[in-house]
Amino acid sequence: MKQYQIFVTGKQGIFDPAGKTAQNALDNLGYTGIEDLKIGKFIQLSCEDSVSLDTVTEMCEKLLANPIIEDFRIDEVGQ
Amino acid sequence: MKQYQIFVTGKQGIFDPAGKTAQNALDNLGYTGIEDLKIGKFIQLSCEDSVSLDTVTEMCEKLLANPIIEDFRIDEVGQ
Repeated sequence: MKQYQIFVTGKQGIFDPAGKTAQNALDNLGYTGIEDLKIGKFIQLSCEDSVSLDTVTEMCEKLLANPIIEDFRIDEVGQ
Repeated sequence: MKQYQIFVTGKQGIFDPAGKTAQNALDNLGYTGIEDLKIGKFIQLSCEDSVSLDTVTEMCEKLLANPIIEDFRIDEVGQ
């Protein structure tokens, strides 16, 4: 069995309303010193050994990320 | 400036509807061999040097994660 970790993040310049809301909420709770907070997706994929990195890249392009507004990075993390 | 990366994942046994939906959709697209797919949050936090790991842990417990159903991990990733 293979394991992949996929990190999906908003592209530079794309507004991230969830991140901004969390940042404001932390500010309201009294946490100062936060300069930026971005919320993306962390996807953990377990699959058979036959599923290659190329295939996972294709899955990201087609479904798991929105290539117009998001970037993604894939790490293979072993068995 | 400090940078933290926070990984928020569903606790073992908690149903992840977004992950299950994505898994089914990949199956419908013809991708076979996927055994499990979980979707969590990937949070990137930029802050002043004065914000400690303890403070970020507190932020997670209070706001960024839901400790009843989610686990989180924090990595400090440098300047």
